[in-house]
This record gives sequence, C-alpha cells and structure tokens, in this order.
Amino acid sequence: MTDRKIRVGILGASGYTGADLIRLACRHPNIEIVFATADRKAGKALADVFPHLGRLKVPNLIAIEDIEWGGIEVEAVFCALPHATSQKVVKGILHGADHSLVDELIVEDADDIASSIKGKIKVIDLSADFRLRDLETYAEWYGKEHDAPELQKIAVYGLTEIYRDEIKKADLVACPGCYPTAALLSLIPLLDAKVITGEDIIIDAKSGVSGAGRSAKEQNLFTEVAEGMHAYAIASHRHAPEIEQELSRALGQSLLVNFTPHLVPMNRGEYETIYVKLSDGVTADDLRAVLTERYADEPFVHVVEKGMVPASRYVRGSNDCMIGVFEDRIPGRAMIIATIDNLVKGSSGQAIQNFNLMFGLPETTGLEQAPMFP
Amino acid sequence: MTDRKIRVGILGASGYTGADLIRLACRHPNIEIVFATADRKAGKALADVFPHLGRLKVPNLIAIEDIEWGGIEVEAVFCALPHATSQKVVKGILHGADHSLVDELIVEDADDIASSIKGKIKVIDLSADFRLRDLETYAEWYGKEHDAPELQKIAVYGLTEIYRDEIKKADLVACPGCYPTAALLSLIPLLDAKVITGEDIIIDAKSGVSGAGRSAKEQNLFTEVAEGMHAYAIASHRHAPEIEQELSRALGQSLLVNFTPHLVPMNRGEYETIYVKLSDGVTADDLRAVLTERYADEPFVHVVEKGMVPASRYVRGSNDCMIGVFEDRIPGRAMIIATIDNLVKGSSGQAIQNFNLMFGLPETTGLEQAPMFP
Amino acid sequence: MTDRKIRVGILGASGYTGADLIRLACRHPNIEIVFATADRKAGKALADVFPHLGRLKVPNLIAIEDIEWGGIEVEAVFCALPHATSQKVVKGILHGADHSLVDELIVEDADDIASSIKGKIKVIDLSADFRLRDLETYAEWYGKEHDAPELQKIAVYGLTEIYRDEIKKADLVACPGCYPTAALLSLIPLLDAKVITGEDIIIDAKSGVSGAGRSAKEQNLFTEVAEGMHAYAIASHRHAPEIEQELSRALGQSLLVNFTPHLVPMNRGEYETIYVKLSDGVTADDLRAVLTERYADEPFVHVVEKGMVPASRYVRGSNDCMIGVFEDRIPGRAMIIATIDNLVKGSSGQAIQNFNLMFGLPETTGLEQAPMFP
Amino acid sequence: MTDRKIRVGILGASGYTGADLIRLACRHPNIEIVFATADRKAGKALADVFPHLGRLKVPNLIAIEDIEWGGIEVEAVFCALPHATSQKVVKGILHGADHSLVDELIVEDADDIASSIKGKIKVIDLSADFRLRDLETYAEWYGKEHDAPELQKIAVYGLTEIYRDEIKKADLVACPGCYPTAALLSLIPLLDAKVITGEDIIIDAKSGVSGAGRSAKEQNLFTEVAEGMHAYAIASHRHAPEIEQELSRALGQSLLVNFTPHLVPMNRGEYETIYVKLSDGVTADDLRAVLTERYADEPFVHVVEKGMVPASRYVRGSNDCMIGVFEDRIPGRAMIIATIDNLVKGSSGQAIQNFNLMFGLPETTGLEQAPMFP
Repeated sequence: MTDRKIRVGILGASGYTGADLIRLACRHPNIEIVFATADRKAGKALADVFPHLGRLKVPNLIAIEDIEWGGIEVEAVFCALPHATSQKVVKGILHGADHSLVDELIVEDADDIASSIKGKIKVIDLSADFRLRDLETYAEWYGKEHDAPELQKIAVYGLTEIYRDEIKKADLVACPGCYPTAALLSLIPLLDAKVITGEDIIIDAKSGVSGAGRSAKEQNLFTEVAEGMHAYAIASHRHAPEIEQELSRALGQSLLVNFTPHLVPMNRGEYETIYVKLSDGVTADDLRAVLTERYADEPFVHVVEKGMVPASRYVRGSNDCMIGVFEDRIPGRAMIIATIDNLVKGSSGQAIQNFNLMFGLPETTGLEQAPMFP
Repeated sequence: MTDRKIRVGILGASGYTGADLIRLACRHPNIEIVFATADRKAGKALADVFPHLGRLKVPNLIAIEDIEWGGIEVEAVFCALPHATSQKVVKGILHGADHSLVDELIVEDADDIASSIKGKIKVIDLSADFRLRDLETYAEWYGKEHDAPELQKIAVYGLTEIYRDEIKKADLVACPGCYPTAALLSLIPLLDAKVITGEDIIIDAKSGVSGAGRSAKEQNLFTEVAEGMHAYAIASHRHAPEIEQELSRALGQSLLVNFTPHLVPMNRGEYETIYVKLSDGVTADDLRAVLTERYADEPFVHVVEKGMVPASRYVRGSNDCMIGVFEDRIPGRAMIIATIDNLVKGSSGQAIQNFNLMFGLPETTGLEQAPMFP
Repeated sequence: MTDRKIRVGILGASGYTGADLIRLACRHPNIEIVFATADRKAGKALADVFPHLGRLKVPNLIAIEDIEWGGIEVEAVFCALPHATSQKVVKGILHGADHSLVDELIVEDADDIASSIKGKIKVIDLSADFRLRDLETYAEWYGKEHDAPELQKIAVYGLTEIYRDEIKKADLVACPGCYPTAALLSLIPLLDAKVITGEDIIIDAKSGVSGAGRSAKEQNLFTEVAEGMHAYAIASHRHAPEIEQELSRALGQSLLVNFTPHLVPMNRGEYETIYVKLSDGVTADDLRAVLTERYADEPFVHVVEKGMVPASRYVRGSNDCMIGVFEDRIPGRAMIIATIDNLVKGSSGQAIQNFNLMFGLPETTGLEQAPMFP
Repeated sequence: MTDRKIRVGILGASGYTGADLIRLACRHPNIEIVFATADRKAGKALADVFPHLGRLKVPNLIAIEDIEWGGIEVEAVFCALPHATSQKVVKGILHGADHSLVDELIVEDADDIASSIKGKIKVIDLSADFRLRDLETYAEWYGKEHDAPELQKIAVYGLTEIYRDEIKKADLVACPGCYPTAALLSLIPLLDAKVITGEDIIIDAKSGVSGAGRSAKEQNLFTEVAEGMHAYAIASHRHAPEIEQELSRALGQSLLVNFTPHLVPMNRGEYETIYVKLSDGVTADDLRAVLTERYADEPFVHVVEKGMVPASRYVRGSNDCMIGVFEDRIPGRAMIIATIDNLVKGSSGQAIQNFNLMFGLPETTGLEQAPMFP
C-alpha cells in the first residue's frame, strides 16, 4: 500500500489553499497530481503562478473545461474552488462517477463533466458548498438556493477527529472552514461531556491574512493591514452558522454563538479565545481533563498542560491544533484557547488528513512535518 | 497664556513612553523640558538613546539623583518610571513641594529630594503606583505594601473624559493604564446609564508590542513576535483590578471582569472587543446612542456610525479613541469595540491632556496631530 | 503673514500621497483646503476613504470636472494625480491662470479648465510629469509624447535644498520622486565638490510598500509582501533617468547609474545604500565633511557623525533626511547611506516645503513634527 | 542503507539554528537524535524551550559536560555552539575519536571529552570557528588565537556544491556562514569561468532577523526592528573575510569585496544583490549561461530564467538557493541576485546536506520539503 500512487486532481490551484495543498501533496508518498486547474491562469506553468513551487513536478495549470476526464483515471479530486461554483463541478464529478445518480443531473456544465467520467472518484471539497446540512440555512447565508441538494445529503462534514468513521466511508467530504475547525475541536467534546452549557458561547477569533485569499483587494494590501488590526464581518461571518450547526448537534438543541473574527498582520495562523459558562460544579481543570482524555491518542490535536499558553507560531506550517484551558476571574466561567494554521489544519492539511482516511492510508501520511518557527 | 513656557521635567525618558512624551512635548507650545532622566543611560545625549529624537532640543539624560531640584524651578514632572520605584520619587517631589506634608516623610531618598524643592510641583504619574484606590488591592496585586499611602489618598485617577473636574484641581494625577483607558471609556457611560448589566463583562484585548516596553527580553524579540500571536497574563494582568475598580464605582457595587490581553505583531495599537449583557429592553442601538451623546463634545473620543468598524490604524500616533457598538447574534447581548494608540491616548498623550487641564491650557494643546496611516 | 490662510486644492486625494498631504496640511497654520478630488471615490466624505482623517475639516471628495474654478479662488494646487494625467490638468490650470499662455492650449480638457480660472494659481506637482527636462527622455521612458512641452520648460525641479532659489519664484514645481530625493541629496554636493567621480555609481535602494500606491494589485497584498523581500524594475525603473539627469548636471557631463530598487515589508521608509568611487586622494571622511558643511544650516537634512548608521525608523513620519558616510574595505571607494520617509520628504512633506518657499512662509511651517518611533 | 539510523548529537540546541536543525532532523529517515545540549536551559524539555517542537521525540536538553560520551556511541555531532567555544569542544571530540591526534591535545576541557570517546565521530560545525583557513586572518577578525590550529588544517569548508568531493571524505566540516553561502554560490563559478573580474565586487546583503540569534538584545526587539530597516556592521562584518578567502581562491589571487549587510523586518530570508564587472566582451547573458550550466544537475541551486526576479519568499523554509542574473544600465557591468533561507541553506539545511554526503546518503535526504508561502 505504501508505494501505491493515487492519481488526484486539484481544482482551483492558484489560490493559497491550492498552493498549500500542492506543497503538502508533493511530499505525500501516495499522491500523484494528474491535473491542476486555475481559472484565469490556465495555460501557465505552476512556476509562473507560484514560483516557490516551481521545481515541483506538477502539470501546467489548465481550465476546468479542458480536463479530459475520460482518459485520466483520477481516483480523487481536491476541490478548492470559490464558494458556489464548487457545487456544479462536484455535481458533475460525483454524478459521472456514480451512474445511479445521473438521472438527477440538472445543471448543464455538470452534465458535460459527468458524461465523460469513467470509474469512481472521491471528492474532498474545501469550499463552503457542502458544509451546511440544512438547505434553508444555506440559502439564507449564501443568498441562493443550493444547486446540488441530493449531494448535500451524502456529504460528510470533514472535521476529522469528530467524524472519522463517516469520513472513511464517504464519497464527498466537506472540509470545515478554518475558524470552525479550531472552535469545534475545542467545544464539541465539552458539550458532549456536558461540562459547559450552550449559553453565551463567545468565540473571539483572530486570523492571519492568508485566510482572505489571493484576490487583489484594497483592504488586503500590505499597507492596509500591516501595523494595525481590526474586527470584520461582525455578527455576519458565514462560519457562524457552520459552528452553530455542529455545536447544536453536540448540545442536542439549537444554540447561537457570538463569533467575532479579527484580521491580524501575519500571514498564517488562527487563534481563538473562547469564553464559556461551566456547568454546575465543574471547574476549568475538569474541562482540561475532558479535552486531554478525548485527544490523548490524536496525532494532531494537543491539549497543553495547565499554565502553558498556546501561540499561533507553535503550529505554523503544520497540521497541529493546540488547545489550552484557563480559569476565568468570574466564577462559573472558563476560557479555551485554540490555535491552528488556517491553511493547514484549517484547510489543506485537514483535506489531506481526510484523503488519507478515505483511501485507507495512515492518517498522518504526508503531514508529519514539524511547525516552522521562527 | 499661549506663549507661556511651563518648565517640566521627565523622569524615565529612555523607554517608549518617555520617547513619545518627548515627541509630543517638543511640539507643545507651552512646554519646556528642563531635565530628562534615564537610569542606566544617564550621561548620554537623547540622540544616543533615541536617534529619531536627536534633533530636538532636550538636555542630556541624567540620573534622578543628579537633578538639582533647588535651581531648576520646574512646575510639573511627568513620571514614567517603572512601577514601584515611582512611589518613592513622587513622594519626595510632592512632600518637598508642599511643606504641610513634610512631616509624614519616611522614605529616605524621598527625603533627599523633598528637602531641596522650592515651590509647588505638580506630578503626572504614568506608572501604576497611584492608580489603585484601595491599598489592600494594591498590596495584593503588586506583592508589597504601598510606600506612600498618604499620597494615594490625594491622587486623582487620570481618565480625562471621566474625571476632568478633579484633574483640573489635582496635584498628583495617576494616568490610567493603556488597557483600562479603552475599556473604561467604553463601559463607564453604559454602566452610568444602566443600559448594560455588570455581569459577565468580557474584555478581549489585543495590544501592539510597544506596550511591553524596551527592556531586552527574549519573548519580545522580533523573531518571537512577528508572524504569530498569543494571549498572555491570562486572568492575572495587573490592569484587571484597575478596570474593576472603576467599573465597580460606576455600577455602584463590586464586580469582576474577564480581561484577556493578547500580543499582536504591530508596534502600536490597542484594540478591545468587549462583550456585554444588555439591560432589559435595551438594544445595541441604545448603547451607541448613550455613547454618542456622552462624547458628542469630546475632541478625542469618537463614536463611529452604525456599521463602521474601528481599526487600530485609524488612531495610530494620535490621541484619539475610536468606539463602535455592534449587535450580537445572541439576543440580549452586544459588543463594543474600542481602539487607541497605547503610547498616546493610552499613555503619553493622555498625560499631556491631563497636564493641559492642570495648567489651565486648552485641552487639545500639543495633541492636534492627525493619525498616521499607512 | 503667519495668520493668513492660503486657499489650496488637492488633486488626487484618495491615494497615500494625498492622505499624507492632508495629514500634514491640516496642521499647517496657513493652509485652507478648499477642494480635494478623487476619481473613483468622488462624492464620498474623506472619512469613508481614509477613516483616520475623518475628524479633519476637509470638504467631501469631488471629481476633477466638478471643480468650479470660477468661484473658489485657490492660490495653489497640489497635484497628486497619476503620471500622464497630471499634464493635461496642470496645463489647464496654468494656462487659465496665465493668459499669455492660452494661445498655446491644445488639449481639450485643459481648455475647459483654463477658461474658467480667474487669478494666478501656483502648482506643486507630485507626479513624474514635469521632472524630466528633456522631452525625448520623457518620451522614451513614458512611452508617449509630452502633452505640455511649453510647461516643461518653466517647471522647476523641486529638490528643495538644491533648487531653493528657483523654487521661490516658480509657478510650477515638479517635486522629485522619492528615490531620487534621497539619492540626489547625497550625491549632488559630492559631485559639485568633485570628491567623487561619476563612474559606476551604484544605488541599492529599499522601499516600504506605501511607495507602490493604494491600487489593488496581487503583488502588493500583505501575503505577497510580508515575511520576504525582492528587487523589482531592475535597470528599468523610471526614477533612473531622473537621477541621471540631475547627477549629469552636477557632474557637467552625461552619466549612467545603477539604480536597483527593492521592496521591503514595511509601510514607510526609503533606504539607499550608495556605492561610489573617490576622486584621487580623497577619503570617506572628506565626503562626510563636504556633506556636513553643505547641510549645516538645513532644517531637514542631517548628516550623522562618523560611526552612526542611519535607520529608516529614525525619520518615519517626518520630513527629515538622514545621511551617513562610510569607508569601504576596497581602497578608493566609499559608501553613502541616506534614508527618508518616502511619503513625507519623498513626497508630501517636500511638496509642502516647496509650497512654503513659493508663498514666502518659513520653510519648516507645518513640518516640525518629530519622527514617530516605534 | 535507507533504513539505518545514524546516532547524532546536537550541541547548542536552544538557538534558532538548533531548532531548525531539529525540525529538519526529525523528518530525516536516517537520523536519531541521541542528545541535545543547551547551556543555560539544561534540564528542560525541548517543549519548554521550543513549544513548536514539543511533540517531537527528542531527549531533554542537557549541559555539554553531562554528555556521557562513553556510552552513547554517536557517529556524528552537529555543533551549533557560539563562535569560539566551538573550537574547544570540537577539539575534544575529534581528538577523542582519532587517537593519532590525542598527543596534540592541549586545552583542558577538550581533554576531558576526548578521554571518554569511543569510536569515530564526525563533526559538522555550524559555527565560524573552522571557516577561515588562515590562522592569522582568524586572529585578526576574532581577536584571539585559534585554539585548535591542527584541526583547522583538516577542516573542509562545507559549501556543498563547490566542495562536494572533499566533504564526502571529511571528519570535520566547517559549514559556511549564511551570507557567504549565497554570495559564493553566485560568484565562484563566474570567477572560475573568468567571465567577471575580481575588481570592485559589491555585495549588498539583506537578512531577516533570525540571523541575529535568540539572545535578548534591545536592538532585536520587535519594536526596534519592525516597520524599518538599517545597515549594520558596515565594512566590519566577520563574513567578509570568509567571502574574500573563497573568492580569492577562485580568482587565483587576493581580492577584497564590499560586503554590506542590512537588517530587514522579516524572520527568515537572505537576499543578496551583487554588483560585478564583466570581463571584456562578456554579457550578462553569458553569466547566466555559466551559472545555469554549472548548476544544471544541482537539486537545490536554481538559476532562474531571464527576466524572473528571485524573491526571498520563494525559498522560505527550504534548502533552495535561487539565483538570477541581470544587465546593468552601466556598460560592462552586471548584477547577480541570490536568495536563500538563512536558517536552512544558510545554516541547518546545508549542515544536513553535508551530513548526507559524509555518510553516503542521497544528498537530498530529509531536505525535500517545498518552500512555505505565504
């Protein structure tokens, strides 16, 4: 098994998520990148778009419509397309791969893709398109109806440590957003264990700028971001319903959270300071004990000892998540601090972790590298 | 009046607070710097310690013990000494200046200073030494008894917009810490107006690195700070009791807050995201209205319109405080975001603002400069 | 004189140069901003485009074509328009103001402007449009014929310390580029004094990102710039001919220089390390002596003592230029290091310095602020 | 061979060089870290000193004097000790390992080490102690006599691509400084091919802050470094004699260079802009051709195509060196730009590359990772 090369395609390779996916995939012993697409940069060599990856052996970037699905025999596709466009493409891939679904094909371009696919293809989707289980919630937050409701039903939410068994069997995995990853890894075990209540959960989140993507916007210029910080998308960030969905499942009833993201002048890193209410008789130490036990055998989730404070730089470039628990000065409350690299555990790394599960590989394959500091 | 030069001394001029005090004082039309002290750097020209201030006309740095109090006739002293050492020096100055207090003199070096002072000197203290009104609270958080309890009684807490009248008449002003400044300007009017409750106030604070001072510590090296962030002093930062003291006064009863500071890779800037509970029937818009009205005539405190998000870079280098109010997704809650430059409104600028009041000058004198961006 | 308000307009106020011009102008005791234009952001309040300047009293931004030249009676216009568009507008202004030039008017929109202007207007142009004295050189580097050759003849190159007398009498000042400012202040006195040769002058320049402007380009995103550096426009930067023009004048014969700019992850600052050949028998100390004497009475140009190394942070936010001279290990050679804030002495500050000269004001008016560090 | 674990020790593991060595070594399939020393931090777990490496399986840090040489059977030692202290320790190790050298032992503590060593140990030294072939040059630049002149004679200068054959057979490799690595890889082939002259070579170098090490110095605080830049150690940096030594060998006669380092606000990265004189009739294209051919088969040195400009971020975190060649506007001159990650190819990565050679492993083992951007 360890020598087998699994042929994969990457959709949307010209963004930072795509780049980090390629960075990691190229050292993965079981991945062979067969194609990589880029909308506006089709036809270019990867070296022209990402000079730092120039020496890797990756085919030139192509447009999605130029993929010759019939001949390439890929087994998996990583989809790092923009939100909303992902749906149609994934629809084509999965319907083409699974002929029992073809009848339901409606969308046109999906049809084209589907008709030429031979054999089964698994999809690891990094967009937000299949994360929200409830189609109405999707429509509310994304301002449109979902294009592939039948696929939303079969999609598995790819938070690896929580949904490992489902992911193993999935054909379509919807990788969580970066913010939800850190928040949910911190909170789901605590709600499961009933050591915190679902009331007034406040997630004060700070992110590096790579989370904003590579598109040229004034607000993300160096000069606009360096030497300062600010909150954004207050009470309106699309990761909020995703967090609420999963926490509500864990709690067993619907809840709302305060999720407030901030932009911080660093490239990578996500840092969440989470304020919670303890259940009666519970202490911060109890919370730490619950998390420590829950993640004792996990290769990537590290609950630090009492007194140690996580820092985003301790996980930079790695698939690690570092979690600490702290007492609050206000009785009956506690704080959890969780940090990940938004492009790795928050995106490309978790995608590969899920890929490993889906193909029966050791879960850490290709993800062993240590964080890079300074 | 506008032409009069008030002779001032600066104690502790070799730190960042001292440097910014000099930067601002040198454009102040009514300030003449008569001496500036620096412990380990005594004897050096200011240009050697702060080359950016090299062209300003400031006397060479001297040691505190070399100030010839008898001859200099200063009217005011800005004290930017480290916490705890400030007490003794201020004691000497004020006792020397006010002969009715001389009898209470105990501390030895204070005695030396006091005996040589002629005339009245007002002190603007930027340290934490006179901020805590309760001597037991001081002892608890600073691990020692207070050295000048009789002065603590006459010290006025220098949050200008809140204690303007007392400051005008004060001989000793204890300028607030940088974190308390932003938090209290946001919260005191809301508690005063009873539009929020005192329960579960959470202050998630983020600071630039200049707040950590200029002493050479591994943890503040560029390489340790850049490209990452982390929380620190969780539930144990000395600004917590200061915030609680003032909020308790406003509320009319004792309260505890969650105050969690984070270090962010920027030089200047303080950004506080504050989570509060609304009183019954109150909305976030009501909070904004209270603050807008409260600060309508203030030259430095700006409550922004609904929808606009403050950013630390909008106040950089200026004495401004920018405040925004936001709805929470959780019913019955709201958020206030406040930002200042920690070295200006959070320290040297507010000190000069208080100086202006104490000497009957227009409050904005020397503080008119616009923020610098980028 | 000190109380007189001179009515000025600012063309192109939505870029960083415009913002810094406004920041400085608003504390200038003799400037009243009558209008400020912004192409795509016309109609907006300054607060919407630059929230940090929101509290300043500046009229809303308008489009150039909406200026009512007939009624506003401005005496001076700062022109921070993009290169090439500046010519036409300046043409209209100056021809309108000086009726002896109307006959030469060709360009249409210039005509419109000109016909409505009453009274004399002086122009301080911050673009590159009037910097190159030779029209062929202009055409070669900018890829088009000059639109206002008759104005190029009357334009004065606004390097204040070198062309002070001409600037005082000028109607049109072409402010130097940021890179040329630091290079020419360093080199012209040395060529004048014949202590260096004109051979193989190498200017290795490093700039902060604000020099690249505020337009949304992928290459200037935080993520593309932070944590790295690179050279750009090698042997092809448009500041090269400008430097060569002025150095050739000083040398008395044509010379070429190596000018190599680099982009460094900081907002502001320009740092030039200049490698030169000494004339026979000359030492680095001689160079320092020449510069020290030349700039002894200059308020903004500071030649530092032997051994002290300039740093860009020592001049940040100020109109200062700091210059140091160093021996080379290679006999017969030396190095000059010069640093300025690219947005101040390299742009808006020098523009105001020239404005002061043109209107008979003390040269330092409005430019006295000390650098801001950290 | 590929499964064999070579037992190694790391001397000086608490600095950034040590940390990056461990980061890389832990993914190296043939390295087992048997001990790691840290002077002041002896007794601590690696997690306490470098939390980002906390999950790696590395023994606790110990003091050098507590290494039990007798029992550990290491085959190689990486020495990342401070300059000057390295000599004594290496002396003990090598004399102990090679009994023919024992007689020459003088230094006391070296003696202690030597007496307990069994078996042969190879040393990869990352300090400057064995880089200068000429003992007088060493004494001149380091202000002391060399403590192990007999070892200096057998030391091989570890610039892998240039001295590969000697390194394979060496017992002691002196890894080059970070600055010399980029400069020499660029210039040696050009001097070898006689396409440039040895005259007036100017190396304008820019480095990230990690090159300054982890010791707590005011000048390396975030606040002192961020948002600015400056030159340092002008005409006096100890990497100058190292560069001159190797270039003189290539040229066949003694030469001096101008080497001017600058500190830039980034963690990692070294960027050298090198100005050279072409030999008669030679063009910049010829230089590129020489370098391209010379490095055609090298896995880590990449000569980029005409027109592409290297950027430090393209090699961050990797063992790559990227080199570009450019025409100068001044006839008869050209520029070479070379960039590396100072902690990898400039230090720990090159050390492992040499280790691979010394132990007959494929040269790229453990160094395959792609650069990390952003």
